Amino acid sequence: MRLLHRENIEDIAIGAAILGTGGGGDPYIGKLMAIDAIEEEGPVKLMDPSEVPDDALVVPTAMMGAPTVMIEKIPRGDEVLEALKMLERKFGKRALATISAEAGGLNSTIPLAVGARLHIPVVDGDGMGRAFPEIQMVTFHLHGIKASPMTMSDEKGNSVLLEAVDNHWVERLSRAVTVAMGGSAMIALYAMTGAQVKESAVHGTISLAESLGRSIREARAKKEDPIKKIMGMLNGFELFKGKVVDVKRRTVAGFARGEARFEGIDEYKGEELLIHFQNENLVAIRNGNIVASVPDLITVLETETALPITTEGLRYGYRATVLGIPCNEKWRTKKGLEVVGPRYFGYDIDYIPVEERMGRMKK
Amino acid sequence: MRLLHRENIEDIAIGAAILGTGGGGDPYIGKLMAIDAIEEEGPVKLMDPSEVPDDALVVPTAMMGAPTVMIEKIPRGDEVLEALKMLERKFGKRALATISAEAGGLNSTIPLAVGARLHIPVVDGDGMGRAFPEIQMVTFHLHGIKASPMTMSDEKGNSVLLEAVDNHWVERLSRAVTVAMGGSAMIALYAMTGAQVKESAVHGTISLAESLGRSIREARAKKEDPIKKIMGMLNGFELFKGKVVDVKRRTVAGFARGEARFEGIDEYKGEELLIHFQNENLVAIRNGNIVASVPDLITVLETETALPITTEGLRYGYRATVLGIPCNEKWRTKKGLEVVGPRYFGYDIDYIPVEERMGRMKK
Repeated sequence: MRLLHRENIEDIAIGAAILGTGGGGDPYIGKLMAIDAIEEEGPVKLMDPSEVPDDALVVPTAMMGAPTVMIEKIPRGDEVLEALKMLERKFGKRALATISAEAGGLNSTIPLAVGARLHIPVVDGDGMGRAFPEIQMVTFHLHGIKASPMTMSDEKGNSVLLEAVDNHWVERLSRAVTVAMGGSAMIALYAMTGAQVKESAVHGTISLAESLGRSIREARAKKEDPIKKIMGMLNGFELFKGKVVDVKRRTVAGFARGEARFEGIDEYKGEELLIHFQNENLVAIRNGNIVASVPDLITVLETETALPITTEGLRYGYRATVLGIPCNEKWRTKKGLEVVGPRYFGYDIDYIPVEERMGRMKK
Repeated sequence: MRLLHRENIEDIAIGAAILGTGGGGDPYIGKLMAIDAIEEEGPVKLMDPSEVPDDALVVPTAMMGAPTVMIEKIPRGDEVLEALKMLERKFGKRALATISAEAGGLNSTIPLAVGARLHIPVVDGDGMGRAFPEIQMVTFHLHGIKASPMTMSDEKGNSVLLEAVDNHWVERLSRAVTVAMGGSAMIALYAMTGAQVKESAVHGTISLAESLGRSIREARAKKEDPIKKIMGMLNGFELFKGKVVDVKRRTVAGFARGEARFEGIDEYKGEELLIHFQNENLVAIRNGNIVASVPDLITVLETETALPITTEGLRYGYRATVLGIPCNEKWRTKKGLEVVGPRYFGYDIDYIPVEERMGRMKK
């Protein structure tokens, strides 16, 4: 267990947005929410999964919806507490800790704000090791944990408790409510025991995000190349270096869907990269060939600063370096690929790990 | 308090569909649900509003959604019990009785099935004296009663508890859930005290429905004109007599919307009637002139049998008599017309009571 202070949050928000692979929410809003909470309530405790008692109740808290909406519909801050409290009432038991459902600028920091406000620890881990767009796309689901009962609340004061027959129905019903709430909602779901956290969560995600954020900060201060540092830390690959020349983006059915086109610069001159996204980046296609796909991470960094660019932040003219990063091993299993492999997202291709794709390209 | 048996249900389902003004669900499905329950559990008690203790908990139960969907997605029967029980758990109190939210072939009989299954009485009344398509369109709402907490459940086993800031938000959120549940859901909402029932409900709706159904049955047996009898009982007017020549119907956003065109027969030969509907009939336009509008009832009866035709049952070739029937006085107030007047439904006209419109036409 250690304490996270304001400075840690700055690093975590940036690092988490790198792992957020375009989604998981805006790091600036996420940072503000957590920092506000810490300044008012004091530092938040970060707890290693191994420290969570086996019979403790742990409840993930998050934002659901299109990040494009979230930018203009900033949460009031207490709606996520309301979601958690509703779920606690449902179980007749207080949550010993909260945890992130996914890594992302907002969804890594919301649990930190919750932890600070309610004076409960946050478990150092998450349910993806990255961000994904749908409710069932968490390692918790792979381990048979039920998303429901799930609670949702919005900034107007509306709240909903869902109990669905399976996690796909939770996704369907909660997505409809999210859209009706105006495109985003604050949620609590996948309530589980400490024993389940240990087994099902991706461990160490918050610490990893913090290291990534700190490395960028330190490398920039020392005039070193922060992107190289990040690639080293995540065993990542440079997929492309270019300039954003076209972004198509629609908010449909509660998701930000679209594609971004990059024109190559430096050694990629004359080449093109296309990224498809649904909140998160799904596939990267270089000169017509897939170079990375879900569940591996496709992360867009501003070349100059190494700061992550979310899918809703992509703008014409940005100079960016695109990385491909191997995902957590849990996603590379048969069950994992059924849930988040390229076929689930409508791509008629087999998943090939990014390191394999890059190895082939070098030959 | 009196007991309702199988025979009573047959009459109630027909009479309620007349009051349902095209909506409120299919009387055949409604009848079956209530009769099944009575045959298995015994007769159901009908309680006059004056008999309900002031501090009793009374919970309306209903089907929500497009009646076009309901025909193909017949309720299992116990999902509405689940909705009621969820709400009871929320209040930590058993419902002393249930009541109809609206008059209609299905929504008048669902509470009877609930009453039979749970051995609780059904209050002789409803929240409309007719059917309307949206959650806030009940006299309960006019009297300041909150629709939420509201529970919803479907035949798959999914359930939802909503708590919204006002009744319009209940409508918005529950409509989204209804659509996600496949277009229809069973619901419990507008939990209220006995005192509130007395003040806010339309009294005697079930008995009225039963009288209407019985009158049709008896008139047909005696070879009398059942439609004339109904007009007399409801102070209604004959708006048109004709043949259905065109029906446009779409299920959109959880509603059955559309219009039906009738070609005149007998004394209406050469004339035309157009009815617009949203689950229920909204306006009747004869030769280009509005002859009746919400909140007054526009009811389509098969000319030969006097059996009510729901909006989803309208088919080319049906010979029908269309009646205009004055609505309950509660709807004719300023607040009532704000909630269900023609302007709410997008018609830029003032409400003129049907008896006034018909009086003008005769001059």
